[in-house]
Amino acid sequence: MGLKEDMKSFHPTPESIPPPGVNYRPVLPPGVPVHRQPLNPLIFLLKAAQKYPRKLAIAHPDVSHPVFYSYEVWAQRVQNLAYALIQAGIQPGDRVAVIAPNSPLIADAHQGVLAARAVICPINTRLTQQEVAYILEHSGAKVILVDHECVHLVEGTKARVIVANDTGKPGDPYEDFLSAGRRFSGERGWSGLEWEVDEDAPAVLCYTSGTTGRPKGVITTPRGSYLAAIANAYETGMNRDSTYLWILPMFHASGWTYPWAITFASALQITLRTVSYPLIWNHLLHSGVTHYCGAPTVQIGLVNAPQARVLDKPVVAIIAGSAPTAHLLGEMERRNFRPVHVYGLTETYGPFTRCYDQPSWGSISADDRARQMARQGLAFATSDEVRVVYTLKEGEDPYADTELVDVPKDGKTVGEIVVRGNIVMKEYFRDPDATKKAFRGGHFGTGDLAVWYPDGYISIQDRSKDIIISGGENASSLAIEQELASHPDVLEVAVVARPHPRWSERPMAFVILHPQRASKWKGRHKDFEEALRKHARTRLPGFACPEWVSVVDDLPKTSTGKIQKVALRKTVAKL
Amino acid sequence: MGLKEDMKSFHPTPESIPPPGVNYRPVLPPGVPVHRQPLNPLIFLLKAAQKYPRKLAIAHPDVSHPVFYSYEVWAQRVQNLAYALIQAGIQPGDRVAVIAPNSPLIADAHQGVLAARAVICPINTRLTQQEVAYILEHSGAKVILVDHECVHLVEGTKARVIVANDTGKPGDPYEDFLSAGRRFSGERGWSGLEWEVDEDAPAVLCYTSGTTGRPKGVITTPRGSYLAAIANAYETGMNRDSTYLWILPMFHASGWTYPWAITFASALQITLRTVSYPLIWNHLLHSGVTHYCGAPTVQIGLVNAPQARVLDKPVVAIIAGSAPTAHLLGEMERRNFRPVHVYGLTETYGPFTRCYDQPSWGSISADDRARQMARQGLAFATSDEVRVVYTLKEGEDPYADTELVDVPKDGKTVGEIVVRGNIVMKEYFRDPDATKKAFRGGHFGTGDLAVWYPDGYISIQDRSKDIIISGGENASSLAIEQELASHPDVLEVAVVARPHPRWSERPMAFVILHPQRASKWKGRHKDFEEALRKHARTRLPGFACPEWVSVVDDLPKTSTGKIQKVALRKTVAKL
Repeated sequence: MGLKEDMKSFHPTPESIPPPGVNYRPVLPPGVPVHRQPLNPLIFLLKAAQKYPRKLAIAHPDVSHPVFYSYEVWAQRVQNLAYALIQAGIQPGDRVAVIAPNSPLIADAHQGVLAARAVICPINTRLTQQEVAYILEHSGAKVILVDHECVHLVEGTKARVIVANDTGKPGDPYEDFLSAGRRFSGERGWSGLEWEVDEDAPAVLCYTSGTTGRPKGVITTPRGSYLAAIANAYETGMNRDSTYLWILPMFHASGWTYPWAITFASALQITLRTVSYPLIWNHLLHSGVTHYCGAPTVQIGLVNAPQARVLDKPVVAIIAGSAPTAHLLGEMERRNFRPVHVYGLTETYGPFTRCYDQPSWGSISADDRARQMARQGLAFATSDEVRVVYTLKEGEDPYADTELVDVPKDGKTVGEIVVRGNIVMKEYFRDPDATKKAFRGGHFGTGDLAVWYPDGYISIQDRSKDIIISGGENASSLAIEQELASHPDVLEVAVVARPHPRWSERPMAFVILHPQRASKWKGRHKDFEEALRKHARTRLPGFACPEWVSVVDDLPKTSTGKIQKVALRKTVAKL
Repeated sequence: MGLKEDMKSFHPTPESIPPPGVNYRPVLPPGVPVHRQPLNPLIFLLKAAQKYPRKLAIAHPDVSHPVFYSYEVWAQRVQNLAYALIQAGIQPGDRVAVIAPNSPLIADAHQGVLAARAVICPINTRLTQQEVAYILEHSGAKVILVDHECVHLVEGTKARVIVANDTGKPGDPYEDFLSAGRRFSGERGWSGLEWEVDEDAPAVLCYTSGTTGRPKGVITTPRGSYLAAIANAYETGMNRDSTYLWILPMFHASGWTYPWAITFASALQITLRTVSYPLIWNHLLHSGVTHYCGAPTVQIGLVNAPQARVLDKPVVAIIAGSAPTAHLLGEMERRNFRPVHVYGLTETYGPFTRCYDQPSWGSISADDRARQMARQGLAFATSDEVRVVYTLKEGEDPYADTELVDVPKDGKTVGEIVVRGNIVMKEYFRDPDATKKAFRGGHFGTGDLAVWYPDGYISIQDRSKDIIISGGENASSLAIEQELASHPDVLEVAVVARPHPRWSERPMAFVILHPQRASKWKGRHKDFEEALRKHARTRLPGFACPEWVSVVDDLPKTSTGKIQKVALRKTVAKL
């Protein structure tokens, strides 16, 4: 059970053992002032390897060949990878793609590609071969690191492909690639790898899932990654005693910078290839897990899994990806999870705001508190500016450098969330038009609609396309979902607009019933639908009450657990 | 007792109350890219005021007019100060001196001077009037903020002097200065104060105490202060539930950047004008103190004070300024302090390294563990590079840009500690020669001598001038002090070289007896001295055993608690 027994099988390859007297000092070119070190999150791994060389850094337990790497061994593997990439012809600024579920391969890549001064391009494993082909073409990736289960996605590419069989053993092509890197290094070690001197250089290229149109490539920097990683470690209280469980795919916005938050904290990371609730609960209960990230849908799955129980020790659950319902936050706290509700996008390195709980909330009801906690909050440790501004007026030039105007902090007026500062992307790769449009008014426009409260907290209402215009009123699908989720028989719910002859649009709700309550409504879905509409009428204004409710077995989701409202709207269009 | 009762007397002046709808957004000039925000620790106060406006930020309890400011009130006072300075003619880059014990005045100055884009120059209150005059002249300070007890130090200055009577009440000249600033602001608020766009601009100018020659002015930057403050908050586990007690003078290396570490954490700070053990223990026991900084000599005073007891809840005690003895660290842990041993200089924003305790030390004896903990350790969260290199050879040009050569990591070879990176000073003010000399070989030379262990930890042996050359051997006065301090009757000890006809030099120890053991040796100091020499012989090589021991009532110390070995050497020269 858990991690402890597996740790006995720790066998690094000979090439993974650092030479005696290894020197972890980054090498800077001449001319860098004594008081400047270009910010780069790679430094955290080098320092962790120096502080805790024998401490477990990565555990990859639930596979046929489990592997366990200490910090010194992992750092050596990362160094080997950097040399191997350079030997393969990778130059500073070149793109290196990685397509893999959570595993040492993609963890290595988040460090080793930076060590080679190249740009890591993590690709969603659940895209189609055509979508991957587009990204490979657009990014111009020269080398692709690919997990054995994803090889079909890169068929026909002209780039060099390195396959990892996820064994950690000699004979595995990825392991042989690392070994070649070690030989190529000539034991020059870290001093043979020049440090990226421009902290504003491209470091990561993540393609947004892009529900419509071609995905856009988000370029982020070493400086931003360094500062974002520190913020994530600080805000969630990670330190060298922490154990982070990889549930969130690392390919998603570079795992919200946790690959570097973990090394900043000198913590242990456990990589899970798939979201399996029995495996997750096994680690929660038996492996000393202290932290994990997940979208609300994953958290719903977790608290409702048959293995779910009250945790002996609190576990910090970082929630983002979409807005959690107050109901979910309450359920999590009852099981001794400590939800940290953050908000952000790929363009903001993942988390950008946090809903800080206020001392004064201690005296309000659990329900009201959860409702406060479901808001998106304020700029967190190292993010800079969050505003809610009036959205583009009809006919207005989307490229114009207009001065943005704040909406009042009244908790009512809906505007667009815009952000700026060090943990905002640098640009869309090879897309100056899209960059200019996104950076209108000197801020990045998130496209998320929100209200701003007198306490400065923002609260997302919807993506602009998710707002339901019902009888001339703007109804927030998220606000409706919040209320429907409070019905005890609802497991998960999504609300979209459905055309209506009289009101223009009306909300339609898609509901998954709670597995332990579903039997009650068996063959009586119509009755449930009526009951839920009635529940809604006691809590929502008329224009926001769902006109239609549909009980479903499943909801369409992205790989990161976001509900695909585009797909639901297509379903609705066919009704 | 403690803070809680005093908090009832919280009365901000009308000018300290922010206007409704106050906007804490920094204003950047046009042209700053969306993804860049110049790093500046002032942002932490603005964010804390937004997150926790009503939370207590500063408590100044132990004076005739106690004051208590919430974050929103404090931020308004800081804003008022910035406008007042600008009205007084302060331009970006101008120096503003502050001479005050720990009090709201100097806490305000660490924020407000930066908000005016000026350079804060904190001056040691225990300097002579002549020394202060030199600093005022050299820094070219245009405005001096001075506590009423320090007014004599600035007599005759041509700069504008603002006196604070430390009352927080109208009629206090400093309060009237703030009120004038508020009126001058025209309620433009934060948006009337331009953000410093150059994160590498001068922000702080601290003069080193300089045991010989003129003090040098250390220039540090907003970028370095931002990163150092985050490191100090992270390494010591400070968060919004923390209470920091100001024992360390804030004028000393800007309080090791804690003025901003505290705001980063949204913590509470309690300012103490003087180091009074009864007051300190009162707050430790009754005010919820979680963190404080102090030199070893302060920690010795604390654990040996009559009020000392075992704390109910652990308190993080950050120790630096000189090397703590293993004995002291053990004593502190027994009283439920959690010592965090850091090392640095004014030139490194205070703390730069930390002695990270290793999981493996759990299984060694308490004595051995304390001995490990007494080392200076490794570069901490955001500091970059620490090395121990061979020192200047005789006749070598101190300005030459020689390549530095590491000493072996053998725990024996003594070299000089050199550092580089973001939390190293930018330069010595108006002293390019001293800067060039200090930055020899692309690193800042600390002048501290140390050995480097195989585990990468450094361990200070001495300042170069403190090494004792005894019979051709280099004896570390610190190592000798470590051993002498383990004698149960020793409260505090300092060792310096004394000329010796045969061995060139031999160690001489000055000892303060433990107050509870002093009676045992009353009238028998000679016997104690012999006993201590005997104790030394069982633990130290012959050349390092003190030839002379002298029992004293007191040791000469700097204002920050560093023992002044220069003074002891003068005493020795007269023997």
